[in-house]
Amino acid sequence: MRALAEKLFDELRRQSFDGVGVTRECFSPAETAAQDLFANVAREHRLPVERDRVGNLVVTLEGEDREAPFIATGSHLDSVPRGGNYDGAAGVVAGLLALISIKSSGAKPPRTVKLIALRGEESAWFGKSWIGSHALLGRLKPSDLALGRFDTGRPLREYLRDVGADVSAIERGEVLLPPSQVAAFVETHIEQGPVLEAKGLPLGVVTGIYGNLRHMNVACRGQAAHAGATPRFLRHDALVATADLVMRMDACWARWVAEGKQVTLTHGIVGTDAKEHAVSRVPGEVRFSVEIRADKSEALHEFHSLLKREAEKVEKQRGVTFTFDQAIVNEPAPMHPRWIERLDELCALAGVPHEYLASGAGHDAAVFAHAGIPTAMLFIRNARGSHNPDEGMDIGDLMLGVQVLAEALISEP
Amino acid sequence: MRALAEKLFDELRRQSFDGVGVTRECFSPAETAAQDLFANVAREHRLPVERDRVGNLVVTLEGEDREAPFIATGSHLDSVPRGGNYDGAAGVVAGLLALISIKSSGAKPPRTVKLIALRGEESAWFGKSWIGSHALLGRLKPSDLALGRFDTGRPLREYLRDVGADVSAIERGEVLLPPSQVAAFVETHIEQGPVLEAKGLPLGVVTGIYGNLRHMNVACRGQAAHAGATPRFLRHDALVATADLVMRMDACWARWVAEGKQVTLTHGIVGTDAKEHAVSRVPGEVRFSVEIRADKSEALHEFHSLLKREAEKVEKQRGVTFTFDQAIVNEPAPMHPRWIERLDELCALAGVPHEYLASGAGHDAAVFAHAGIPTAMLFIRNARGSHNPDEGMDIGDLMLGVQVLAEALISEP
Repeated sequence: MRALAEKLFDELRRQSFDGVGVTRECFSPAETAAQDLFANVAREHRLPVERDRVGNLVVTLEGEDREAPFIATGSHLDSVPRGGNYDGAAGVVAGLLALISIKSSGAKPPRTVKLIALRGEESAWFGKSWIGSHALLGRLKPSDLALGRFDTGRPLREYLRDVGADVSAIERGEVLLPPSQVAAFVETHIEQGPVLEAKGLPLGVVTGIYGNLRHMNVACRGQAAHAGATPRFLRHDALVATADLVMRMDACWARWVAEGKQVTLTHGIVGTDAKEHAVSRVPGEVRFSVEIRADKSEALHEFHSLLKREAEKVEKQRGVTFTFDQAIVNEPAPMHPRWIERLDELCALAGVPHEYLASGAGHDAAVFAHAGIPTAMLFIRNARGSHNPDEGMDIGDLMLGVQVLAEALISEP
Repeated sequence: MRALAEKLFDELRRQSFDGVGVTRECFSPAETAAQDLFANVAREHRLPVERDRVGNLVVTLEGEDREAPFIATGSHLDSVPRGGNYDGAAGVVAGLLALISIKSSGAKPPRTVKLIALRGEESAWFGKSWIGSHALLGRLKPSDLALGRFDTGRPLREYLRDVGADVSAIERGEVLLPPSQVAAFVETHIEQGPVLEAKGLPLGVVTGIYGNLRHMNVACRGQAAHAGATPRFLRHDALVATADLVMRMDACWARWVAEGKQVTLTHGIVGTDAKEHAVSRVPGEVRFSVEIRADKSEALHEFHSLLKREAEKVEKQRGVTFTFDQAIVNEPAPMHPRWIERLDELCALAGVPHEYLASGAGHDAAVFAHAGIPTAMLFIRNARGSHNPDEGMDIGDLMLGVQVLAEALISEP
């Protein structure tokens, strides 16, 4: 099994190497070729293979009760441009190996088990995340289909058509996979973060996927002025006011973390306006972004309120105004409590050192959870983050994940 | 006299109105036309007129002792693009009116008094400030003559030649006005700042012209990271580190101001790199500018050291590095102590409410002071700053300045 995992990753890298890293565009021939690789291995193990109406690859292991809702596992096969070999793919490899392992044990699982190799998870291509799972669950909007790919400008609609997806059903918002048919969705994914590695733990049981709240463009407006002729007490410096807000919120964040609250705060973008800024000019305007992530909806919105309150204090103290654009909100997705416990038990039974942790990054699993499907995630330790060619993962860690996953798929809580 | 002042400003605005504000380019026909306006009025009052080897306009009022060093007054006649009607010109109007007023009183002054209407003060055109006074005092470098005008690209050398300047002498660094020939230089200028207006004072006696120390481009480098997957304790966020330094220095500045120290701190430019920043990415690099101004050289360099020390603290605490480009330094120019006192006395004698203040902005007077010439400046209250079409100045305030200046030119300390 370990040799098969290595072979699959080697072949994936070979197929998708771009000279620097791994590139598999959403709904592209490269993504389809990766699906074909898995489909061929599945067929070799006599596991039936099909594509759903979104173009996702589905591998089926039939269960005792063919009428009962099935259990699904899976992850995505697309990558960011110049990404790594494990983000997404690790979950598909783990799922296929779990199905093969269950089948080769000879025992028929109580329910049917399906591996879904999802398309189009990365937002890098169309600005929209989790397209494959959104489409499957009837949650893609017509406006999403008009999104152009960042590099080609060609709309998502045409890429969907290329891979044989049922574009008109997707556009109508038809639920192509009724949640009532799915007993559970269990996703395996590399952690993408340094926590498991720092703590020396091969696996992590995910308690929830952080939601996020984003302001793409906040304007702080003060008053531009001559740096030489304007004394301190008469300044309304937009840059100092922005720094003030950043530091106030950094202190709030530190306090929340100390209290054990799961939240992150990131200002990824900041800038004065090149058309009017100058070394000798007190800046009249600074623009910046805000991204808050939290494991719980209340935390997300409470931290956002805190941001607004602190901004008001800075406004009063410094004579500036903050103008926030419309917040874009993705609500957190808690994992299913019984499944969290079950994965914990199975890790313990297998003797695998593990820990609970929340996922700061978003995943297809959140879309399944929001559709009301009991959902769980298992994280595999990995090195050097994700979305870069240097992503690292130990195959030994993956095999521990496969062991736990296979057991979970046939002995649900 | 008031009517003459109004006529001169009206005519200047008429000559140089660009549709939005006032534009008189350095060493341009527009600047020459403004000189001619003053030359004609001087001739009408039988004051001899000439142009020096830089092309500056010189109006002379002969004194009793023709061999003694002369007293000079003046300011500049160029403007920034779309500037106002008073920055620079107010000092030339005041100087001419003072000479006329002394002459019409019938008394010959003890020393010869000269009005110098300087060319090329504004850095907006060639990136170099105070070209007229620098050239006069042998302080223009050959590399300065190669500077291109920001809009035409044509080098300063050719513009100097256009106005009949002695380019080869200027290039050699010849001292065209030996400081030993000048007993004092007294410049009248609008304040450009809001202090006199805020305090209800028509005039200000300048104690010194701030020096400045600039870093055009400081890089703060941390580590770019996935905003979702990187917890607080593992971040090296270049933006938060920059905000931290900005706030630390803002607190230092507040302390210095509370201690009565004359210093300003401005970060006019800040930005993440558009090629790699993203709302969901912990920023790995932020660039920003630093400008420190101070009335004393020690304060300038001490505050700069403080910046470096605070940056080191942030580096240690946050795991980032600050890389400072070469600092560009213009040393402060203290005004002459006896002249400061004398202008104070004369304001008091004239019953004009006034106050001492330092000039945050740079002036030609600093070049005269650095050449060892006893130098003084008188500020006139003005509204709405400078370098904009809305610059305001009350002619009544200017006339109080003319009264004090005329007295100062004939009764030096």
